[in-house]
Amino acid sequence: MQVRRNIRLLLSTLMMAAVFTACQTNAMVEQHDSDIDKKVSELLDQMTLEEKVAELTQDAPPNERLGIPMMRYSECLHGLWLPGATVYPQAIALGSTWDPESIRAMTTAIAKEARAANLTHCYSPNLDVITGDGRYGRVEESYGEDPYLVSRMGVAFIEGLQGTGKEKFDENHILATAKHFVAYPENRRGINGGFSDISERRLYEIHLPPFEAAVKEAGVGAIMPGHQDLNGVPCHMNTWLIQDLLRDEWGFDGFVVSDNNDVSRLHHMHYIAKSRKEAAVLGLQTGVDMDLVIGKNPADAAYIMNVLQDTLKSNPSLVKYVDESVTRILKMKYRLGLFDQENSDEVRPVVSTPESQELALDIAKKAVVLLKNENNLLPLNKDKIKSIAVIGPNAHEEVAEGKKYTLMGGYSGIPPYYTSVLEGIKQKVGDKIQVNYAQGASLNSDSKAGFQEAIAAAQKSDVVVLAVGGSTLTCGEGIDRDDLELFGVQNELVEAIVKTGKPVVVILINGRPLTINYIAENVPSIIESWYLGMRSGDALAEVLFGDYNPGGKLTVSFPRSVGQLPVTYLERPDFVGSGKGEYKFADKTPLYPFGFGLSYTQFEYSNLRLAKSQILPNEKTTVSVDVTNSGKLQGDEVVQMYIRDDFASVGRYDKLLKGFERISLAPGETKTVEFELNPDNLSLYNQKMEKVVEPGDFTISVGTSSMEKDLNTIKLSVR
Amino acid sequence: MQVRRNIRLLLSTLMMAAVFTACQTNAMVEQHDSDIDKKVSELLDQMTLEEKVAELTQDAPPNERLGIPMMRYSECLHGLWLPGATVYPQAIALGSTWDPESIRAMTTAIAKEARAANLTHCYSPNLDVITGDGRYGRVEESYGEDPYLVSRMGVAFIEGLQGTGKEKFDENHILATAKHFVAYPENRRGINGGFSDISERRLYEIHLPPFEAAVKEAGVGAIMPGHQDLNGVPCHMNTWLIQDLLRDEWGFDGFVVSDNNDVSRLHHMHYIAKSRKEAAVLGLQTGVDMDLVIGKNPADAAYIMNVLQDTLKSNPSLVKYVDESVTRILKMKYRLGLFDQENSDEVRPVVSTPESQELALDIAKKAVVLLKNENNLLPLNKDKIKSIAVIGPNAHEEVAEGKKYTLMGGYSGIPPYYTSVLEGIKQKVGDKIQVNYAQGASLNSDSKAGFQEAIAAAQKSDVVVLAVGGSTLTCGEGIDRDDLELFGVQNELVEAIVKTGKPVVVILINGRPLTINYIAENVPSIIESWYLGMRSGDALAEVLFGDYNPGGKLTVSFPRSVGQLPVTYLERPDFVGSGKGEYKFADKTPLYPFGFGLSYTQFEYSNLRLAKSQILPNEKTTVSVDVTNSGKLQGDEVVQMYIRDDFASVGRYDKLLKGFERISLAPGETKTVEFELNPDNLSLYNQKMEKVVEPGDFTISVGTSSMEKDLNTIKLSVR
Repeated sequence: MQVRRNIRLLLSTLMMAAVFTACQTNAMVEQHDSDIDKKVSELLDQMTLEEKVAELTQDAPPNERLGIPMMRYSECLHGLWLPGATVYPQAIALGSTWDPESIRAMTTAIAKEARAANLTHCYSPNLDVITGDGRYGRVEESYGEDPYLVSRMGVAFIEGLQGTGKEKFDENHILATAKHFVAYPENRRGINGGFSDISERRLYEIHLPPFEAAVKEAGVGAIMPGHQDLNGVPCHMNTWLIQDLLRDEWGFDGFVVSDNNDVSRLHHMHYIAKSRKEAAVLGLQTGVDMDLVIGKNPADAAYIMNVLQDTLKSNPSLVKYVDESVTRILKMKYRLGLFDQENSDEVRPVVSTPESQELALDIAKKAVVLLKNENNLLPLNKDKIKSIAVIGPNAHEEVAEGKKYTLMGGYSGIPPYYTSVLEGIKQKVGDKIQVNYAQGASLNSDSKAGFQEAIAAAQKSDVVVLAVGGSTLTCGEGIDRDDLELFGVQNELVEAIVKTGKPVVVILINGRPLTINYIAENVPSIIESWYLGMRSGDALAEVLFGDYNPGGKLTVSFPRSVGQLPVTYLERPDFVGSGKGEYKFADKTPLYPFGFGLSYTQFEYSNLRLAKSQILPNEKTTVSVDVTNSGKLQGDEVVQMYIRDDFASVGRYDKLLKGFERISLAPGETKTVEFELNPDNLSLYNQKMEKVVEPGDFTISVGTSSMEKDLNTIKLSVR
Repeated sequence: MQVRRNIRLLLSTLMMAAVFTACQTNAMVEQHDSDIDKKVSELLDQMTLEEKVAELTQDAPPNERLGIPMMRYSECLHGLWLPGATVYPQAIALGSTWDPESIRAMTTAIAKEARAANLTHCYSPNLDVITGDGRYGRVEESYGEDPYLVSRMGVAFIEGLQGTGKEKFDENHILATAKHFVAYPENRRGINGGFSDISERRLYEIHLPPFEAAVKEAGVGAIMPGHQDLNGVPCHMNTWLIQDLLRDEWGFDGFVVSDNNDVSRLHHMHYIAKSRKEAAVLGLQTGVDMDLVIGKNPADAAYIMNVLQDTLKSNPSLVKYVDESVTRILKMKYRLGLFDQENSDEVRPVVSTPESQELALDIAKKAVVLLKNENNLLPLNKDKIKSIAVIGPNAHEEVAEGKKYTLMGGYSGIPPYYTSVLEGIKQKVGDKIQVNYAQGASLNSDSKAGFQEAIAAAQKSDVVVLAVGGSTLTCGEGIDRDDLELFGVQNELVEAIVKTGKPVVVILINGRPLTINYIAENVPSIIESWYLGMRSGDALAEVLFGDYNPGGKLTVSFPRSVGQLPVTYLERPDFVGSGKGEYKFADKTPLYPFGFGLSYTQFEYSNLRLAKSQILPNEKTTVSVDVTNSGKLQGDEVVQMYIRDDFASVGRYDKLLKGFERISLAPGETKTVEFELNPDNLSLYNQKMEKVVEPGDFTISVGTSSMEKDLNTIKLSVR
């Protein structure tokens, strides 16, 4: 295999040299594309109908007669979804880094890991903007509740995976798939796949921006529609969405791959097509190019020969749709260099490298969010503490070789190893500190049998680290809940440990914002880690003992109760009449808001200023702020910039995130952070749904979270 | 005053005789209308700008110079909202009757009560279709979750209040106001006034139908927009809604009255108008004719002289909008006969009559919904029971003269008396049965001090009637909750009483569907009474002792937990992929579904048949079913008919109510119930939002609730 790989590398290098030369100018890029067009056209002419239809499935085998290579696929939400892969933090944790460059570094590494394993197409990223409804189990697959943040993360993800410029789709990069197009998290009752019902305005304001950026900025090569019914027209037959908007208006030039079974679902879920054949025709006419059918149940595979081919023979006018789709797919195979590659169908193992594992650790540390730290309980002092209790169902996990871990979130590969909180702490403290471990409780049991051992462990320790939360047993795709409390007897466990009187640090390891009122009130230090990937324990140990100062921020608001959903910072002005926009017997504000996260040091904001305080609607200016680390430790701060058009022709959200930057400051250091204010981020959709900048005053808010009290404001006048 | 009233009656009679003559033919009606047009036009010419603007408020004083009468207003959601009024069951209970004729009888009586008190305009009915979100405190003001049901109730309400044909707006009828136009219950997070975000499809399918019926069928004279931001365009400035749809497309010829302060709110809530003056101009240009400002804070009154008049003087082109609005209002004053009436501003007391109180009792009985009746615990046998415990915070209420009761729901007048459950039972059983009363707990306290007395009362009784639920302290406008559990210690009280082992009947008196899992599981008999009005106790006593056999049905689905909201029968097909359209750890079906309600007798459905099994898209046919009372007591059954278009060009709800009829059957009696199937109820909105009947198969379901198991189905073919 080594020889073969070397030949492949040699060929790739030669090819890339050629590509490099060809791509020196845009004109030459176009020449390259038109060469591909020509080759695809020639190939299409030689293909039989059977061969064409065969190309329309996600794992079409190689066509040996015509030398058409196969395109092997996987998922890579946070690492390849395969055994041997490097597992990075789950998407919701990636969001918490507020650091697109980390995402870009991750997908750059993933692409290499994929190419080495002969994988060239991934069904990632997930660009769903979640809607404040934590019942939905796939909240963890999103970067959060803000369209701008998701856009920035999405572009970085795609550019890292696909490459940019002359490196795009080269031998170190693969094809990305932006999904689920569109508004998939607007599911009824928080249930995966439930129908979405929203206004065109909300579609444009909240859900389309990440996809528009993916297409126009990052040039994503594939798009996957959502399973769901969107305002009565399922995404997989939504010609407005897939043709008019995506292809015609945005200029998307890649292919559309269905989500699992979704072409057939136009018949057997949505009851629109009267048969699977009708469904196949509908999907094809809509422009869904590739039929993804996991498990290949012939009855589900809408485009496979026994469904579509007969239909095409009896209705030859449909062949043009097949030709269009095959053309799009073959073009991508050319762009990915598959035609120049030997053995494109070869199955090679996924191999995680030490470098990518270090990257996974770096990103994991950046993702940690410190929610509470009363009396600076954290960081723990290794020199003063003699014993530490490590307790909780999520403190440790061991699995048999080849089995799946449950503490890294959905769509996790099986990494070569996983460090738990317990292992990370043990590794960090060595023999210096006594570690007393007790599981206390299990996630999937209501037994309190382990409480006594846990209490004993706490009682004999100086401090307690208590890891609770969820797992792939309680959260993830298809695991939607009607309750956001800690599962099982975890709340009781926390209460029992708190009652020992020992100082307690709660580490949350989980996939959705939970209602943690008891913990918030009674536990002095709280860390939200989401799922931090294969290096979870290492990252958390560094944070616990102050080797790393946490700087992550929430990208989802935490509700106080499931009865307050949806909870996001994207609110409109409160009703000022009866009820006063409040619940009568409860506080409707989030327990922890979007953008919130503490540090072991302090940051001061000063000198908020505009380069120009008045501009024309088509002009730009900048807003700047000085941020000073006024504490005693090096630390990261995520500086956030929100915009509000004070009076406008339409109702709108109280504020919208339009800029952010994660900076690192030494104690006493000051940095100036600058954000551009431009027609794009000052604009809104007016009543005619035109994107315009309306003259008037704008409130520009800059600060450390989305909460009013954490923001400094300045007025920009647009005249 | 008697003399004056007689004169008024005489004048009215004379006038009506004239009107009768004038209305013999449509041509003559038009003549009458054109007479009014002419008179209004002449009047307008004589009015100063000040006088015109003065007409634009909801209680414009009489214009003595020109002889323009005032139009006195109130609310009449379920009776006049004034002291002395007859108080009928709250709207959600009216809905539960499934009997439009009861609603019509009620508003016919209300109109008379209003005219006698010199009131001629009411801000009712509430045609909001609620959305399965019981957090919203105004759920009680709606007829329920189904647009067809709300439409039928709304038309009956308006026709009863305004009159029809030659009696319309005569001296026995008044002006109705359909509100809140539109989609007001689609409020974010269940909070009153929160913004609505829905698709155009949902607007047409769910929220517009009752208003369209109110305008086109019932000819409602006034419309009130909702407070809220509807997809970015607040209703009070939504020209598409108020001009294009309401006036131009539907042909609405009455006037639009704002909700409280809402013109000003375009400035100080929605931040669209930059000032109150701009808000006033915006409201006026949109066609909001009348400015309703309760409390008359001059700062809030957008149209009053000090705001609008100055603006009009500096911008005379706006006067045409004032003229249009004044014209609409004056025309209504003519149509209501106010110009022919002496002392239109006279304040006369509201007087409830014995006849209307009997009607209130009749309707209250029809509204009662029996949710559970294990082993036929109900009806109670007066001859066998020796003692009865009457327990609970809602079992009895006494208030000081002129004070408001809390157990009749929002917008209740103060009736001359109110019969509580305790009083109703005492009245019913006289000296025959010992009644042991104990409050047990109070709604607004967590004290269990009364438990012991309640337990003792139960222990010494043969049976317990336990009245729990809510009140105007826990539900109603501005009382939105994030929790649907019984308030305070009521659940504990129920548990304590159940533990006595005595047979328990729980009567729910409340305004929103609560999560009553403990009661549903542990209490043998459950009655949902909502708020039954001034005769609550009388009605419930008749039901308890079998003098009346309950036949009401729920018009709202009961969730199992607040985390399952929204819960309605209007669901789309379940996702058949991961998660299978379910919560992972909970049953998502309602605890009690839409259309559900038991009886003391049994009904059997048979012989479901179509007059024609195949029709053309523009044809009609009928579906019939035979319903037999197979039990031993006279009883009412609400026969329900649902339609589903099996395969259609768009996604749609699993079924839609398109017909219902409440029938009364003697034991052994059979009646045939027939529903029309016509282009209107077979149609859907296609992708172009055209209302069409699509050829294909339709499933017609007829039965006793919305649950599949309660429905018989037959296929209609449209070809």
